[in-house]
Amino acid sequence: MILKTIFLGLEAGGKSIVIMNGDDAERLGVLSLGRVAIRFNGEVKTAIVHKSSKMVDPGTIGVCKKVWRGLGLAERSEVEVEAAAFPDSLYFIRNKLAGRKLGRDEILEIVEDTVDEKLSDVELSAFVTALHSFGLDLDEATYLSLAMIETGRTMKLDGGPTVDKHSIGGVPGDKTTLLVVPIVAAAGLLIPKSSSRAITSPAGTADRAEVLMPVTLDLDEMRKVVERTGGAVVWGGAVHLAPADDIFVKVEYPLSIDPLLLPSIMSKKRAVGADLLVVDIPTGRGAKMKTIGEADLLAKDFMEIGSRLGITVRCAVTYGEEPIGSAIGPALEAREALEALMNRGTAPDLVDKATAIAGMILKMAGRSDGKALAEEILSSGRAEEKMREIIAAQGGDPDIAPEDIAVGEERLTVKSGRSGTVLWINNSSVAEVAKAAGCPKDAGAGILLHKKIGDVVGEGEPLFTIIAERGSNLRRSQERLEKARVLAVGDRMEMLIHEVKERPVVKRSFTLDR
Amino acid sequence: MILKTIFLGLEAGGKSIVIMNGDDAERLGVLSLGRVAIRFNGEVKTAIVHKSSKMVDPGTIGVCKKVWRGLGLAERSEVEVEAAAFPDSLYFIRNKLAGRKLGRDEILEIVEDTVDEKLSDVELSAFVTALHSFGLDLDEATYLSLAMIETGRTMKLDGGPTVDKHSIGGVPGDKTTLLVVPIVAAAGLLIPKSSSRAITSPAGTADRAEVLMPVTLDLDEMRKVVERTGGAVVWGGAVHLAPADDIFVKVEYPLSIDPLLLPSIMSKKRAVGADLLVVDIPTGRGAKMKTIGEADLLAKDFMEIGSRLGITVRCAVTYGEEPIGSAIGPALEAREALEALMNRGTAPDLVDKATAIAGMILKMAGRSDGKALAEEILSSGRAEEKMREIIAAQGGDPDIAPEDIAVGEERLTVKSGRSGTVLWINNSSVAEVAKAAGCPKDAGAGILLHKKIGDVVGEGEPLFTIIAERGSNLRRSQERLEKARVLAVGDRMEMLIHEVKERPVVKRSFTLDR
Repeated sequence: MILKTIFLGLEAGGKSIVIMNGDDAERLGVLSLGRVAIRFNGEVKTAIVHKSSKMVDPGTIGVCKKVWRGLGLAERSEVEVEAAAFPDSLYFIRNKLAGRKLGRDEILEIVEDTVDEKLSDVELSAFVTALHSFGLDLDEATYLSLAMIETGRTMKLDGGPTVDKHSIGGVPGDKTTLLVVPIVAAAGLLIPKSSSRAITSPAGTADRAEVLMPVTLDLDEMRKVVERTGGAVVWGGAVHLAPADDIFVKVEYPLSIDPLLLPSIMSKKRAVGADLLVVDIPTGRGAKMKTIGEADLLAKDFMEIGSRLGITVRCAVTYGEEPIGSAIGPALEAREALEALMNRGTAPDLVDKATAIAGMILKMAGRSDGKALAEEILSSGRAEEKMREIIAAQGGDPDIAPEDIAVGEERLTVKSGRSGTVLWINNSSVAEVAKAAGCPKDAGAGILLHKKIGDVVGEGEPLFTIIAERGSNLRRSQERLEKARVLAVGDRMEMLIHEVKERPVVKRSFTLDR
Repeated sequence: MILKTIFLGLEAGGKSIVIMNGDDAERLGVLSLGRVAIRFNGEVKTAIVHKSSKMVDPGTIGVCKKVWRGLGLAERSEVEVEAAAFPDSLYFIRNKLAGRKLGRDEILEIVEDTVDEKLSDVELSAFVTALHSFGLDLDEATYLSLAMIETGRTMKLDGGPTVDKHSIGGVPGDKTTLLVVPIVAAAGLLIPKSSSRAITSPAGTADRAEVLMPVTLDLDEMRKVVERTGGAVVWGGAVHLAPADDIFVKVEYPLSIDPLLLPSIMSKKRAVGADLLVVDIPTGRGAKMKTIGEADLLAKDFMEIGSRLGITVRCAVTYGEEPIGSAIGPALEAREALEALMNRGTAPDLVDKATAIAGMILKMAGRSDGKALAEEILSSGRAEEKMREIIAAQGGDPDIAPEDIAVGEERLTVKSGRSGTVLWINNSSVAEVAKAAGCPKDAGAGILLHKKIGDVVGEGEPLFTIIAERGSNLRRSQERLEKARVLAVGDRMEMLIHEVKERPVVKRSFTLDR
């Protein structure tokens, strides 16, 4: 079928799409989300079909930017359009939908076609949903890791083992990485740390680090920083270690599922050439892993996949029932981390966690005095010195002081209505209130905890302070606070954990019942 | 955040979408596929967010037609944009993703938001994939049926029971409906039959019927035809009985899954007010149901859901190992059906199947002599007479003769290389070859079988003829024929069923292995 082209001006997320008139599509025998081959001047491109009766007249075809440029089209170019087969990768996805295990070639093909944007959103969503529903075994997870590495950028540093750490997240205020990287680098190991920004949390490690220094470095820039200082803390989005993962994450976000957790993490570690890795698994009722048993099982999987990828993995199951340290929010957390590096006596739990994890890494690298060595590097000021080297190498101000870090001026302090002991802190309420206050886009917003679990509190004593850059956000967080209880003070365990509310949808009758 | 609007001109399949600059989206704290509320002149609309760094400058927002018209926007209108919550229905979809059973309110909300185009393709795909992966029980199937009825159009005919028949499909050449409708209507029952067009088959019932008469009737037009004649055969796409189903089917197509089979069928039967229903379940290795056991289980589900919806259901498990009659392709099948109605001795298997199913319907309506009555109505010419009434009422030529029906001029007859017996006919090869010959868009294309299973064949005797409207399609079907074996002649069962070929993807190494 010969059709005249119309430029759509659409990027369509990098996908190759065309819009056909419904009648033309019917005559060609293609349905919405099917594929057509478009031929022009001896070149052929395959595109995903969308139909429209109004946007495109019969005899014409709307073409997105990618195909337009790929074929060198002009307005009203005459192209030959014919029905084309679905990509092989879609047949492999259908295999998974049928509950079958995927082989390595199948997985590589799916991941390659994902990166090449050959699969529609419907197909990608079905793939991650099927992985979630049927599960994936360790072979599949390993091949997915390898395929993500294959389709991304990689690096290999010379001189000494390359180490890495990763937290599966879920606990607010976790600025451990900002201490571990300089401690480990000061001990002579290489630690090229790529980190994520907040997706649904008040702050990601990249957001925290960005308060101290630029983090949008590409892979070559990161490599230079690590070659100079031994460490780096950069935003993973700019180094393009696993472009497939970025695409899967985008689809997973509205669904709130995460079947690719292991491959997503492990592929990036392998891509930066990690030899040794510690995975932090925060555990507790407010964390992703609710029980130590669950955490241990996940740890086993990490270690097994690590061994298949040539990475020695150890896991740290850590206390995740409350935030780490007292500060939540990018600037507040960066300030707390810097104070801890400067040995100002801040956040003993943060210091303990960071030296424990750094100690595990040092031990894996052959230093038998792991945690003691980590503590010594921190208390001697060598960790602070190393952090300032890294800040300078990444283009920040090496002389930055905690007092230089700007935080919001709008404040609200919540006081205890009674005396007693802090019984629990709700991680997700903390995160919600901090986000309502403006986190992560307002870097100076957040929460400062004055009390933590087990602390004794007098009536009228401050429990926590909400900090915002704008009054409207402070009010918004105050409204949140009325619905979400952040912290409980009592004499004994309060037995009612919470009341289950009615479902949000109004009860209705079907017409047939009337 | 205040942004200036840019018209996208996009219909986006009826969905409300906006395209935001990546920086604006980040500042607002919304991700791709998240939601924003857009406020203008006191009106608010919610839209699905897509991000683009190139299409939309910071400070502006690209708006699709639906939101543009809904808010009465103009180029560079200033709108207030803020982050909005996902719809409740998405949280219910997440419940299904967690393996939980959905309640009736949850299902109604999901189906309503589907019809209102409030859910993105990613979310719809996850819903059908989760239904497929975790399965749906009879409660869920019933509520899905009710919700599809609730969101579509319905009708209720006066005078006598309304009956219906449905085939789950899968067997080529199945023109049974074209006989059952006039037989049943001639007996005084009401049968408002809505049918589908071919999706992946060479011809759907709507395609066959369209050769004889117009089938694109709306609900009111169909009602008038049934009120006048007792029967109708129309295309379901135009009567909008279950708009939700049309949306689900579009998503299911590339995935080749069909978890909504039962609700999709039963909702449409209830929507036309059916009191009695016969479901035809063709069974055999080339059909959708491979074994009689499977077919019986499906039948049980149909009957149970029917009873919950107030429809008495009986199921016909029918022989599905080979095509029905000899003709495959819209025009060839219409001609064969018309000849059978005219008692020309055509297709005894078709006549037996049609009178058996019509007989079941008649029996359910209280005529104890079901099949005998159906045979009598057919042989007396009353069925033909009724069909010509229906053709006239739908706007076709009531005097149409089989000889008036145009079929393709390009022909290729395949002859047997040996003498023996026809051992098997492969339904999917028949369908593939017929489609390659031009079906369903070339109505005159198709296949005529000269022999069927069990027939004795001499060497050089014709087995089947491929018919096409264009020579290029005849050649295409000939190429297909080389890959797909349509029919086998032998003395005894050939023990090699087929050879499993290598997978289409080339074996490759991961870089890490090198």
